[in-house]
Amino acid sequence: MTRIEPSNDGAPFRASLASIPLLSPEWQARSVARLNSLTKPLGSLGRLEEIATRLVQIREEERLRLAKKVIFTLAADHGVTDEGVSAYPKAVTLQMVLNFLAGGAAINVLSRHGGIEVVVVDIGVDGDLGEAPGLVHAKVARGTRNMARGPAMSEAELHAALGVGIELAAWAVEQGHVLIGTGEMGIGNTTAASAITAVLTGRQAAQVAGRGTGLDDPGLARKIKVIERAIEVNRPDPAQALHVLQKVGGLEIAGLTGLIIGAASRRIPVVVDGFISSAAAAIACRLEPKVRQFLFAGHRSSEPGHAALLEIIGEPPLLDLQMRLGEGTGAALAMNVIDAAAKIYDEMATFESAGVSEATA
Amino acid sequence: MTRIEPSNDGAPFRASLASIPLLSPEWQARSVARLNSLTKPLGSLGRLEEIATRLVQIREEERLRLAKKVIFTLAADHGVTDEGVSAYPKAVTLQMVLNFLAGGAAINVLSRHGGIEVVVVDIGVDGDLGEAPGLVHAKVARGTRNMARGPAMSEAELHAALGVGIELAAWAVEQGHVLIGTGEMGIGNTTAASAITAVLTGRQAAQVAGRGTGLDDPGLARKIKVIERAIEVNRPDPAQALHVLQKVGGLEIAGLTGLIIGAASRRIPVVVDGFISSAAAAIACRLEPKVRQFLFAGHRSSEPGHAALLEIIGEPPLLDLQMRLGEGTGAALAMNVIDAAAKIYDEMATFESAGVSEATA
Repeated sequence: MTRIEPSNDGAPFRASLASIPLLSPEWQARSVARLNSLTKPLGSLGRLEEIATRLVQIREEERLRLAKKVIFTLAADHGVTDEGVSAYPKAVTLQMVLNFLAGGAAINVLSRHGGIEVVVVDIGVDGDLGEAPGLVHAKVARGTRNMARGPAMSEAELHAALGVGIELAAWAVEQGHVLIGTGEMGIGNTTAASAITAVLTGRQAAQVAGRGTGLDDPGLARKIKVIERAIEVNRPDPAQALHVLQKVGGLEIAGLTGLIIGAASRRIPVVVDGFISSAAAAIACRLEPKVRQFLFAGHRSSEPGHAALLEIIGEPPLLDLQMRLGEGTGAALAMNVIDAAAKIYDEMATFESAGVSEATA
Repeated sequence: MTRIEPSNDGAPFRASLASIPLLSPEWQARSVARLNSLTKPLGSLGRLEEIATRLVQIREEERLRLAKKVIFTLAADHGVTDEGVSAYPKAVTLQMVLNFLAGGAAINVLSRHGGIEVVVVDIGVDGDLGEAPGLVHAKVARGTRNMARGPAMSEAELHAALGVGIELAAWAVEQGHVLIGTGEMGIGNTTAASAITAVLTGRQAAQVAGRGTGLDDPGLARKIKVIERAIEVNRPDPAQALHVLQKVGGLEIAGLTGLIIGAASRRIPVVVDGFISSAAAAIACRLEPKVRQFLFAGHRSSEPGHAALLEIIGEPPLLDLQMRLGEGTGAALAMNVIDAAAKIYDEMATFESAGVSEATA
């Protein structure tokens, strides 16, 4: 896949949203029975066992082999960078996309480590990219609009970006990927994620905004003011998640919301990366709480707003390594843990097969 | 290596203990300079960056490639099982060793996942094992003695077990391993680790003892009484760590203490697994605080006494997945994270090489 033609037909997104299944308790029981037959004290592998059980419930298969895994790193610019909310110049979005395509970024290193394919998606970079292996052209606009002066996206742009995510999920299924990770790149996007967090959770901008890529104190104060202004200018309705996304979100965040909804509707588990990805996931969970069943929270970001989003997602994060890079880096490391859980389920000997005595007490 | 002849000559252990180096701040500075040149915001990879820096300091090399990694799983029985302190029969120690050698246990699965060699060491199994690939015969005794009725080891047994650990570290270096993980198997050994924890930290047995492999309430109450009795009978001196180890420890715990000291003296970083391994590491740290520089705490075990041991080791654990299996399983997963940190250090592009603009704010 090298190109997705963005379309503002919202039908595929609505169809996916309406078709997210409920997981079966029967498959849960089957998984627990198998886990309890393996040569270890009951429950002694903790969260690895919980992960395996959820994978069994999602996939409804006796074995879990996670052969193919992909991380989608969606890139878009943010007009709000005009307000001086980032430590890095806006040009870095495009420069980092080139770095991803050359294999030199953290997400490339960690994905190679985990045996994960990286697909970079230009959903809104303010610049032109050529053809390159691992790049999908899906540009909805040349950057998200400046939310300090009006909506971050038009309604048409919002639906186009959601639709790109749905198409990415469909492509992943076609390719045989059984686990999807979310990632993003966009200078200015912690400002958008902070605004979403403030609106969804009713918190003040100052409570949820952090230093992003490394703002100093005056920079952080400016960022908080910009978030407050964006909320004041746009008056997003907290009860309508898509309204929030359109007004103070971003193209890559909307694309990730679509990806998550698309994956859940196709029974593909999703590993959510850090703060930005969690903003997309929180929107998806508000739209349809059944989405939660398909999500793993990859890690706890050190951005201060992340904890509030994790509450909406309702999943404790798998890792806490004080990371705050994005790109999908936390998801990549967490996919390694999920892979380990799947192998435990698939590969361990049972008490019977290994001739090990069971507990007597 | 298939056999180590245990010797009660304490000289190699004492020599290792006396030769543990201090890490150099110069190499720390070199590592931080490189990390800050990589295409990511300063410090944004959190603990991965800390790990990389410590590896650079330990190894004093410009690149970290962790090609060869090994986990030593030391197995021994515990006479204290006669007091009814475990949910599993004592025979399970030997049965699980056979399971390790057949590749069906959790440690095998997680080590394959992480590209880690597993070496199983019979340092005190009460039973006979044949020759098998991946097995080292180093039997000091047919089980640790019943600490509820006298010392867990004689002085000669203690020194022999410490010496086995020193030899394992030397062998690992010869084989080119650059990262060592600790593991253990021994029905009854959470009782020993709890007793060590109580003595080293001055806590009550009831505060540090847990359900181990799955004790019920009466079983846990019995275990606490047995720990109290062992401490009363042996009167270990908290100020003398080797005295504590001899009186209320175990052969595999002493072997791990030797392994850790041996590795530190040879500048090899060690990933400490859970509760039992941390008891060994805490003894090592009390003997020589410089040992801490070489330790990574793999994970936070759900055994209640573990937190107190982590304070002595002085390292926050890398993972918290509510595991409590031992064998080296937490170390295996953490080695995956450490490997990722090393690859970040080695493989990421720099701002200069990738043509990415640096921060302006």
